Amino acid sequence: MNAPVGPEQITAAAIASFDNCRDPRARAILQALTRHLHALVTEVNPTQLEWSQAIEALNQSGKLTNEHRQEFVLWSDVLGLSMLIDAIAADRPSGATESTVIGPFWAVGSPLREYGADIREQPGGDPVWVHGHVLSVDGRPIAQAELDVWQNGPNRLYAVQDPGAPEAHLRGRFLTRPDGSYAFLAVRPTPYPIPADGPVGRMLEATDRHPWRPAHIHVAVSAEGYEPLATHIFDADSEYLDSDAVFAVKPSLIRTFVPRAPRDPHCPPGVSGEWFSVEMDLVLADRDARRRDHGSTQRT
Amino acid sequence: MNAPVGPEQITAAAIASFDNCRDPRARAILQALTRHLHALVTEVNPTQLEWSQAIEALNQSGKLTNEHRQEFVLWSDVLGLSMLIDAIAADRPSGATESTVIGPFWAVGSPLREYGADIREQPGGDPVWVHGHVLSVDGRPIAQAELDVWQNGPNRLYAVQDPGAPEAHLRGRFLTRPDGSYAFLAVRPTPYPIPADGPVGRMLEATDRHPWRPAHIHVAVSAEGYEPLATHIFDADSEYLDSDAVFAVKPSLIRTFVPRAPRDPHCPPGVSGEWFSVEMDLVLADRDARRRDHGSTQRT
Repeated sequence: MNAPVGPEQITAAAIASFDNCRDPRARAILQALTRHLHALVTEVNPTQLEWSQAIEALNQSGKLTNEHRQEFVLWSDVLGLSMLIDAIAADRPSGATESTVIGPFWAVGSPLREYGADIREQPGGDPVWVHGHVLSVDGRPIAQAELDVWQNGPNRLYAVQDPGAPEAHLRGRFLTRPDGSYAFLAVRPTPYPIPADGPVGRMLEATDRHPWRPAHIHVAVSAEGYEPLATHIFDADSEYLDSDAVFAVKPSLIRTFVPRAPRDPHCPPGVSGEWFSVEMDLVLADRDARRRDHGSTQRT
Repeated sequence: MNAPVGPEQITAAAIASFDNCRDPRARAILQALTRHLHALVTEVNPTQLEWSQAIEALNQSGKLTNEHRQEFVLWSDVLGLSMLIDAIAADRPSGATESTVIGPFWAVGSPLREYGADIREQPGGDPVWVHGHVLSVDGRPIAQAELDVWQNGPNRLYAVQDPGAPEAHLRGRFLTRPDGSYAFLAVRPTPYPIPADGPVGRMLEATDRHPWRPAHIHVAVSAEGYEPLATHIFDADSEYLDSDAVFAVKPSLIRTFVPRAPRDPHCPPGVSGEWFSVEMDLVLADRDARRRDHGSTQRT
């Protein structure tokens, strides 16, 4: 490698610096990263000040990140990268429920609850009976599938964001019954802004983008022999379905939250007054049906 | 904006999310960033595990960064981005001294020292008399120009890295004399590895790249009416001149460190035994000679 001088030589030298990498996957990733970032810099022609501002935004993103705040995940989300990776990986067989972003609010250790249990550990909000079946693509019920659910409530916050809420508020794990059915009592979720007090929020403000997400309930499902699924149940009446800040809406995931009468015979125990129900079947792909292994870096 | 589903629609939606940005420069930067990152992801097709590893490398880089350690600057350096920006901005008139990376070891507040002063605050290493003139492109001497110099010594460390060294060790600021001349007594610099105990170091190791930089002395020059310059004096005898980990070598910045006899009549005071001298004139561009203002984001 000779000493580079002009822009083209520097780009060529930076790419060539990985030529001797013995791991072909690492080489491909780093050379592609270098090539695309050099193309970006060449196109944008940043001033030193702009480059310093970019470095500082990365520094600040790192400083903000902790167990409950993932600023780099948020960058990936608001630039559409998380959903792009999801879409590229989406080689589930037709008929399987579509996936969407996990987002930053999942937390380990939600309590295992009984069929139909109430995940509300605090009052407030409109009760919603969430129910459906976990099924295989050919329609067979999947018993003992585990659902992990989390959502926000009327104050817009997830429990992990809310120092005033019990840790298990609006979170829970459920096992499906022998007929594949699941149900739990929740509240109607509300639209909320993604955390906007950091570098991502400042970028959205500087570019006249809003930080809002439409109302949804998160559901992650796993079952022996099936591909794990992380998805949302979107509320069909929500604002922002057509401008989700993280591009995560898929039409197949939108459901109507049906208003139910207080005297409805199916009114869940403990509910008085207005309530809603929403039904969503969750269809899992066989593990062997995937065309590539997305869980492994073993490419060599 | 409709709900995106396939990869192409997600990329289009992410780019279009900035269409309403009222600042055209911010819009151009964010749309280019989004487009190039989506091209990277589309090409590399990362697994969820690889994406998580990338996010984690960013997190760790943020955690490591502090006043004396700039891991994101290091990423910019080892991917050749810092030198690419330098090269694109390099529209100095021919004859001006070329610039190169500032690197992570500059520190504010180096002591102002007299012409010819010794920057060694600790013993060890081969003494070097560093001298030359600061000149304009048309050859006029520039008096009262300020040089800020910093370098490592025989233990490979810069003072900011070395808890055992006085803060001002191998650092100093100097003003040129009326004839534009400068001089200081230093030590011969040594090759050194860039900080390799973080994510950048792990990336270099995983891709079979070495972390070494060739021996050099940093010089930053500023003078009223001239473009500031940050550059290196590279040692022509050093290893790694042809494989600098940060791509910063330019042939015009390489100088021979000339061995001098102990009894040489120009032997600096306080030096006994073998010593070296190295001469480098520093030629500054007129401030008005630059074709664009690289210090401003005012593009609108």
